[in-house]
Amino acid sequence: MTQTTPMRPTLDALQALDALQALDARDPLAHKRAEFLLPQGVIYLDGNSLGALPARVPARLECVAREEWGDALIRSWTANNEGGRDWMALPDRVAAKVARLIGARPHEVAVGDSTSVNLFKALSAALAAAAPTRRVILTDADNFPTDLYVAQGLNALMGGRYDLKPVPVADLATHLGPDVAVVMLTQVDYRTGERLDLAAVTRQAHAAGAVTLWDLAHSAGAFEVDLNGAGADFAVGCGYKYLNGGPGAPAFLFVAERHHAVPVALSGWMGHADPFEMAREYAPAAGARRFVVGTPMVLSLSALDSALDVFGDVDLAALRAKSLALTDAFMALLEGVPELTLVTPADHARRGSQVSYRHPQAREAMRRLVERGVIGDFRTPDILRFGFTPLYVSYADVYHAAQAVQDVVRELRG
Amino acid sequence: MTQTTPMRPTLDALQALDALQALDARDPLAHKRAEFLLPQGVIYLDGNSLGALPARVPARLECVAREEWGDALIRSWTANNEGGRDWMALPDRVAAKVARLIGARPHEVAVGDSTSVNLFKALSAALAAAAPTRRVILTDADNFPTDLYVAQGLNALMGGRYDLKPVPVADLATHLGPDVAVVMLTQVDYRTGERLDLAAVTRQAHAAGAVTLWDLAHSAGAFEVDLNGAGADFAVGCGYKYLNGGPGAPAFLFVAERHHAVPVALSGWMGHADPFEMAREYAPAAGARRFVVGTPMVLSLSALDSALDVFGDVDLAALRAKSLALTDAFMALLEGVPELTLVTPADHARRGSQVSYRHPQAREAMRRLVERGVIGDFRTPDILRFGFTPLYVSYADVYHAAQAVQDVVRELRG
Repeated sequence: MTQTTPMRPTLDALQALDALQALDARDPLAHKRAEFLLPQGVIYLDGNSLGALPARVPARLECVAREEWGDALIRSWTANNEGGRDWMALPDRVAAKVARLIGARPHEVAVGDSTSVNLFKALSAALAAAAPTRRVILTDADNFPTDLYVAQGLNALMGGRYDLKPVPVADLATHLGPDVAVVMLTQVDYRTGERLDLAAVTRQAHAAGAVTLWDLAHSAGAFEVDLNGAGADFAVGCGYKYLNGGPGAPAFLFVAERHHAVPVALSGWMGHADPFEMAREYAPAAGARRFVVGTPMVLSLSALDSALDVFGDVDLAALRAKSLALTDAFMALLEGVPELTLVTPADHARRGSQVSYRHPQAREAMRRLVERGVIGDFRTPDILRFGFTPLYVSYADVYHAAQAVQDVVRELRG
Repeated sequence: MTQTTPMRPTLDALQALDALQALDARDPLAHKRAEFLLPQGVIYLDGNSLGALPARVPARLECVAREEWGDALIRSWTANNEGGRDWMALPDRVAAKVARLIGARPHEVAVGDSTSVNLFKALSAALAAAAPTRRVILTDADNFPTDLYVAQGLNALMGGRYDLKPVPVADLATHLGPDVAVVMLTQVDYRTGERLDLAAVTRQAHAAGAVTLWDLAHSAGAFEVDLNGAGADFAVGCGYKYLNGGPGAPAFLFVAERHHAVPVALSGWMGHADPFEMAREYAPAAGARRFVVGTPMVLSLSALDSALDVFGDVDLAALRAKSLALTDAFMALLEGVPELTLVTPADHARRGSQVSYRHPQAREAMRRLVERGVIGDFRTPDILRFGFTPLYVSYADVYHAAQAVQDVVRELRG
């Protein structure tokens, strides 16, 4: 899986729909597709932006609304905790499910709030964990904008104490001086799909005395992440992309156990050691639960909880193998199309679960693709982005999507 | 409505169930009860903690899950904005519905995140709006704990720059010196149900040169609030109490237009002027939209959106009149019960929409009441709390609830 020489099937073999259908026939994850409600006539290659609807979610929402909220009302906060349904413990139960996917222990994960708010929590905690003399926050100049905005807002609130330094990710090493407090990176670039070696970069940052903060927005649920194996410090991730938790689903925060004693900047009652004691002084709950802030959004959180059960029987190595095979196939089928400039690394180790191309008329090309039922997305200025979610994208989908891309590119050429 | 001499029907009249049923028969809000799904055999007096389920919400959730998420997928972010359904504008549409209830203009309200997170946004903004030489945050020592925790966490993050001063609310005036930056108060005390005069306290704070931050958790949807009429500066409120938005529903933030230029501490991409421009520098959106941070939790936010439609035809003066009549009746029916010490003001102007009593065995008394289907709640150390939500609580409910309270108190006496 981590070889650096790409192994790609030949174009000839892949061009045959038969060959791809044969891959579907022996796909160990093929049965997972039936666990999603996908619209007819659509090939959905945008699960990296919004994961598809797991079939089990509508019934769970109905139950949470009518039974837990409507019938049990306020009693649902504490009732039925043996049955694993009490709302007070819901954030912890969801955290445990996320933990398995990212190589964390359950008490190192807190679920709730948006990714942006979690970035704020994580960065303030990471800065508190760093040596106080260090004043640089090192980040990727091409990081997802909200990561940069959150750092800008937090730094201004702290009186401009830090120097936020966005640099090209390739030059990171040269900037890792003794002034760096936190290295804040997104593991998979949202535009190019390039994947960083989380363990290697973490080692590098630690060797330079810095604390790491990883944004796993395009990692969690796309492939296995091993935060503790890598010795990572802090991480955040998104609930609504590869975790399929629904639009704007609650996000997660990882705080390695050794950092649990840092001050909690967003200190709310649901992260208090005893919320209903109604004490005047904040006293943090045990573990990462202290990073839960206000009352959890139970409807959205229950959808995520239910969606995560889709991963219950999924072997993450098989998930990664299929992701690479799907993206390999797509890249092979579009190789040599002159208008398309591949920006996703061919090297498996450096690839996430998406394939992106530059195209001079990318916005219009994507509009036409969506019209044909092939849903990927456009990212400014000229990127066609296609996400491959191994739980519900088939090899045959790859074939038909590539055909549609070729057709649209040909049309625009004429 | 604001007379200071309480006008309460006599005990004799109220003791008759007939009399109360007659009030139900001419209640202009009686038809609203059918818009909620209430469990059989329950009198629900805890809508001040978790509002009941509006009947329209399950269908809306089903539609959002199956159609907007499942079928339209990523297209729902922008599709159908003429139909008022695009997710990008959903926070703004909900904000407009909240604005009407609190005397704000739509562009002064931002909806999303928990109340605690909104307190953090509001307090950081209020401190930025205050004169920089002022270093005291004045608050009620009996404020809801999360309000205190959030202030503690924010102040620590800002290097302990401020002095958080919790004082008895009755002594507020004596502490309103030239050092006070922000007066942060909850309008209705969550334990006693005592209501502060928002306009008078705001005037007092302004006269002392301070900025006001109001927590409307037990105000919004319980009675009409007129923030702009009072010249209020900042406010937050809860979506899941009197607004019936569901467990942990998104909360709201009010920022008076004159303060819109303050720096945004929690600056995320959904509050950016052009989120999909993917610019590296944060540039705030127009109005209070800048206080939206990350991707909105669409499922929870849609439930709140739908729940707010219940208020569409509600006259807020009639709502307040019924709230006072319900609480008057309850207080009258329990007058003279020796174990019950009323802690809610009899004065209409000083009363929210709840009635609270101290009782030496309050926890056990509430347990027995809930067992009998009368759901209020216990608040430490010895408070029995009963919330009266005029949209779905009837006068007959008041009678039966008071009977149950008398029975339980009698049992515990024996």
